[in-house]
Amino acid sequence: MTRGNEWTLDPARGLPADSATRAHALEIFRHTQHLPLVSMHGHVEADLFLRNETFGNPAELLIIPDHYLVRMLVSQGHSHAELGVPSKDGSVVESDPRAIWRLFCRNWKLFRGTPTRFWLEHELAIVFGATTAPSEETADALYDELQASLNTEAFRPRSILERFKVEILATTDPAISDLAAHHKLAQLPGNHTIVPTFRPDSLLHVRNSQWQKEIRTLSQVSGVEVGDYSTFLAALRQRRTAFIAAGARATDHGHLSADTTPLPPADAQRIFAAALTGTATAREAEAFAANMIFEMARMSTEDGLVMQLHPGVLRNHNANVLGTYGPDTGFDIPVKMEFTRALAPMLDAFGMNPDFRVIAFTTDETVYSRELAPLAGAYPAMRLGAPWWFLDSPEQMRRFRESAVETAGFYNTSGFVDDTRALASVPARHDLSRRIDAGYLARLVAEGRLGLDEGIETAIDLAYNLPLQSYAART
Amino acid sequence: MTRGNEWTLDPARGLPADSATRAHALEIFRHTQHLPLVSMHGHVEADLFLRNETFGNPAELLIIPDHYLVRMLVSQGHSHAELGVPSKDGSVVESDPRAIWRLFCRNWKLFRGTPTRFWLEHELAIVFGATTAPSEETADALYDELQASLNTEAFRPRSILERFKVEILATTDPAISDLAAHHKLAQLPGNHTIVPTFRPDSLLHVRNSQWQKEIRTLSQVSGVEVGDYSTFLAALRQRRTAFIAAGARATDHGHLSADTTPLPPADAQRIFAAALTGTATAREAEAFAANMIFEMARMSTEDGLVMQLHPGVLRNHNANVLGTYGPDTGFDIPVKMEFTRALAPMLDAFGMNPDFRVIAFTTDETVYSRELAPLAGAYPAMRLGAPWWFLDSPEQMRRFRESAVETAGFYNTSGFVDDTRALASVPARHDLSRRIDAGYLARLVAEGRLGLDEGIETAIDLAYNLPLQSYAART
Amino acid sequence: MTRGNEWTLDPARGLPADSATRAHALEIFRHTQHLPLVSMHGHVEADLFLRNETFGNPAELLIIPDHYLVRMLVSQGHSHAELGVPSKDGSVVESDPRAIWRLFCRNWKLFRGTPTRFWLEHELAIVFGATTAPSEETADALYDELQASLNTEAFRPRSILERFKVEILATTDPAISDLAAHHKLAQLPGNHTIVPTFRPDSLLHVRNSQWQKEIRTLSQVSGVEVGDYSTFLAALRQRRTAFIAAGARATDHGHLSADTTPLPPADAQRIFAAALTGTATAREAEAFAANMIFEMARMSTEDGLVMQLHPGVLRNHNANVLGTYGPDTGFDIPVKMEFTRALAPMLDAFGMNPDFRVIAFTTDETVYSRELAPLAGAYPAMRLGAPWWFLDSPEQMRRFRESAVETAGFYNTSGFVDDTRALASVPARHDLSRRIDAGYLARLVAEGRLGLDEGIETAIDLAYNLPLQSYAART
Repeated sequence: MTRGNEWTLDPARGLPADSATRAHALEIFRHTQHLPLVSMHGHVEADLFLRNETFGNPAELLIIPDHYLVRMLVSQGHSHAELGVPSKDGSVVESDPRAIWRLFCRNWKLFRGTPTRFWLEHELAIVFGATTAPSEETADALYDELQASLNTEAFRPRSILERFKVEILATTDPAISDLAAHHKLAQLPGNHTIVPTFRPDSLLHVRNSQWQKEIRTLSQVSGVEVGDYSTFLAALRQRRTAFIAAGARATDHGHLSADTTPLPPADAQRIFAAALTGTATAREAEAFAANMIFEMARMSTEDGLVMQLHPGVLRNHNANVLGTYGPDTGFDIPVKMEFTRALAPMLDAFGMNPDFRVIAFTTDETVYSRELAPLAGAYPAMRLGAPWWFLDSPEQMRRFRESAVETAGFYNTSGFVDDTRALASVPARHDLSRRIDAGYLARLVAEGRLGLDEGIETAIDLAYNLPLQSYAART
Repeated sequence: MTRGNEWTLDPARGLPADSATRAHALEIFRHTQHLPLVSMHGHVEADLFLRNETFGNPAELLIIPDHYLVRMLVSQGHSHAELGVPSKDGSVVESDPRAIWRLFCRNWKLFRGTPTRFWLEHELAIVFGATTAPSEETADALYDELQASLNTEAFRPRSILERFKVEILATTDPAISDLAAHHKLAQLPGNHTIVPTFRPDSLLHVRNSQWQKEIRTLSQVSGVEVGDYSTFLAALRQRRTAFIAAGARATDHGHLSADTTPLPPADAQRIFAAALTGTATAREAEAFAANMIFEMARMSTEDGLVMQLHPGVLRNHNANVLGTYGPDTGFDIPVKMEFTRALAPMLDAFGMNPDFRVIAFTTDETVYSRELAPLAGAYPAMRLGAPWWFLDSPEQMRRFRESAVETAGFYNTSGFVDDTRALASVPARHDLSRRIDAGYLARLVAEGRLGLDEGIETAIDLAYNLPLQSYAART
Repeated sequence: MTRGNEWTLDPARGLPADSATRAHALEIFRHTQHLPLVSMHGHVEADLFLRNETFGNPAELLIIPDHYLVRMLVSQGHSHAELGVPSKDGSVVESDPRAIWRLFCRNWKLFRGTPTRFWLEHELAIVFGATTAPSEETADALYDELQASLNTEAFRPRSILERFKVEILATTDPAISDLAAHHKLAQLPGNHTIVPTFRPDSLLHVRNSQWQKEIRTLSQVSGVEVGDYSTFLAALRQRRTAFIAAGARATDHGHLSADTTPLPPADAQRIFAAALTGTATAREAEAFAANMIFEMARMSTEDGLVMQLHPGVLRNHNANVLGTYGPDTGFDIPVKMEFTRALAPMLDAFGMNPDFRVIAFTTDETVYSRELAPLAGAYPAMRLGAPWWFLDSPEQMRRFRESAVETAGFYNTSGFVDDTRALASVPARHDLSRRIDAGYLARLVAEGRLGLDEGIETAIDLAYNLPLQSYAART
């Protein structure tokens, strides 16, 4: 809320308005607000913590790399270039961070009702202690205020981890990463736990333009000369082992479809061989990707890495934006999903296996009540991931609980994961999630469906215990 | 709610928390809470009432046969065997009901936020008058308390019907049933109305492993020697007539798809002949099943049986669970549905026919506003069934009203059906439904969208009059 | 609400019940309730205003042409004939408007919980100043009261526009219209702005039974002899120019699918030629229709007409009703939609073009959070249309905001469009929309997610500024 030059956030923001429900929500939230942060899935890079340098300026930290924020400004006619998004083709982009910041502040109203607004208010007012909300008038003063903070020791990456009690933070790393930053971080004294996550997507999609190059790198990094399907599997096993040695708890898979149909080994071998010569068809590539999800699940039953599935987003919807500014600039759009039949092969094979754990995420909310909650509410191996990406917002997190809990219960959900690239938004995202869960539990209490003591215990589990348990190694 | 050893349920449980809305909801609910129960669709067996024996023990009554409850415990790593679910392959399962009961009580927290929690609280506290909520500490005392009740006359099946004012109860019976239990029940003095429902699924899916055996039984029971498609139809007509004579009001159909496309008679004859020799293809079997829905609709226009469609659940998702424990153990998962095109052949032929009534159910909530409400809001033959199975829960029942009523109105919905296998849960399920409808109507009143007198009248219609009217014979 | 013979509507109707939220909602609504009406999409005919005659009788004005209302009464067993819907086949229909009116009043309860109820209450009590709600008892008195009003000058069409401050009203006109009524209206002194909308559907579906006749009319009206695909495009360009000269702001497209895939020109030419000889296949016709959406988008980038897409409704679901009573009698049923892939060709080509604007509508609410909000929240050319048809109702409008705003923001939505055929319902529909938006914004305020000043400004934008901006010519 803005009140002249003074800026205080409503302590009950994000909680239900009804007075009876709000009282319960405040009581529940009081028990979770200051719990340590468990961040089991995200995209902050390990190197950031290793270097531990001060951040450059407010635009570089808060605007340019945030695809939620860039997307909204682009949707209202501002160009990626005006926002300083680096171009791939050498075209000129805005280089004055203050100009970029002013453009953002002038357009603050566009974010009304969005989670970006909620997170940024928290980041600015709580993380940075800023005393004024963004607006055309306050842009310069706010910039200076933020810059002054950024120049201090307290805003170095590792200091932020400490200040916000981040107990563990998982990065996301390509399977071909040598994990050098992780190894060096592990040797630092007093280090927080920063662990890698095994992401093999680029190796599993055999028609990607970089695939053959990736395979060569895989051979080098793994020490396994990849010449056919079986050496490919062996090299992947080697990388998984290396990731586990570096502390990894999980794998992550970002396929378009959730298909998990295994191939007969001969077919997998044949398609892999064709891929090496660049002759695999699109249909073969899809079948191979599905087969590899099944194989990754099988390996998880062997080595205990928790499997994360993040399917259903059509990447790079606009060819021009991709060409000029590259991926992750706001033009990834969800498609409708099917999980019941797609996951059947994997769950039939491994879903009752106590050594297996799979966490499924979606950006198609319609599958929560119809497919994901019934599956997670039956198979012991499966948990239902927190609302992801477009669904990581107040209304959607509330609707997730309303759609999934009645069938899956609270205890077949993963607990919160923040999934952010922006370190400063980590505390903001956990704060919002805890508020929404407090509100949902408070409604159950107010409607006589749950005891207040049970609501408090459940809120603590969702915020803290469940993410730790869901991502605990299985073997 | 648990308060030490004393256990009282909140009289306003399940009603909206906002004080203005709650006042209206309490007033509306006061008018429906004690109405007789009309149970037009369910899975309690007629034989249970004929035998009228005391139930064995709490585990046998409340845990082992409840697939909602078993599913949740299995999803958290407890085996079907630990829960005493009888195995098909001779493997040993827990036989001590008290051990099973303790396992359940220890895991009471898993049911937070689920309808199972709501129903069980009602069953334990209201139906059984138990004085303590389940927990590790209270398990044994609660078991003894329940067992003592179960041993009394008041808990024999027919006594339960009387105590909870069950005015009429429909069972679900295979088309090849001889309805012997129903005939004997009809001769008992002072009997409640217990009527059969005609369920021909196993006869309409020609590739089911038992199909040829079922056809032989059909010939015997109907007295019509089934040798081709036309004698098959004649035998089905005979069974429908026999069911009507035994009081049946409705048919019930549990196909995977909602397809109602009729076949040219020659194709139907050909596929039926192929099925008799075991050579019908999967595609032919699907086409034949769709054709039979159309034919069942046609027969309904002739004999007045109300048609119930329950499509969209993929049965037996896990082959191992099916092999060891059989069907109905929690591994049936919904798939996305399509009704607009699927029902078009049937509705185009019979949807304006005053002698036809079809009630459509779904476990895919997305079809309510998009397809089922527009169809039920146009065709006089069609009504929209109450939220079913995974959707028979507080949030989903509320969302059903929010999604369907604006287009279909209240009076094109079926009124409540409980659809349960568990006799003791019948009153609990009606109670919950009446609370949720009271809450929804109260919100309309509080928002100035309906008069309180109208809200009360509508609630009574939904709880009592509409199920009777929706399932009234049409001819 | 009915209170004996006196009839006053609740001033807070449609606003949230919670007292804290309601106070904010009333304050927000106070700022929008009396704003002028901007009606950028609808189906009132220009000729109505040109003739400016008094309306005949209440049944003719309020019942017979309202497909929402007819549909509901038909769904409960009343025939189109009883309701006076004109037949195409000469069969006799009710001709006494008072009998039709009585039938409606007797069935007032069927509309509980529907938007029809909300709109009619507003029309009767506010537009007509009626003093009693419909019922069997009040039918005749109410009829007389309404008839007395209808006979006065104040109820002539242009007077209604003035009384309700309709600042601009768009009609929908076939592309082959000569726009004569619009030209004459433009010459009247003191005229309100009534503008046409370019609707070429019947020309773009080459297998429609009337297509060849329509093409001949197109040649005549445009002055371009249409003999092949390129003259077809030229004739369409001519009509767009003529519509723009008559004040048109937008085109409108009612295809079943949202497909926008362009054809290679040779294919388009070939299919058009086949269509002229009646030999185009169904698949070719579909591909041609998709291609034409792409071409219409291209023309919009040239001439600045805003493109409206209204896909996803399967028309004339019942062949008998279509045969006897024609289209628009309540038997149009939505189907599930896909936009992410369907719009990709068009958005990839024109989505970043500042001269293009497309507004997408849906009757499948599942696409809001999954597809339409992400697309509208990224592409500057795209806006998300107001909830349409079956979704133009209190619960659905609220759910639209809850589903779309977090990703698209408020400022990538179109603002309200009323889309009605019924002039008397225009103020009622805007009133309801303003109430629901006030309620949603009030909740954001009450939950500390928005300042009250921001809520008021946003409400004014949604009700007034955004429709004007969204439909402003782009070039």
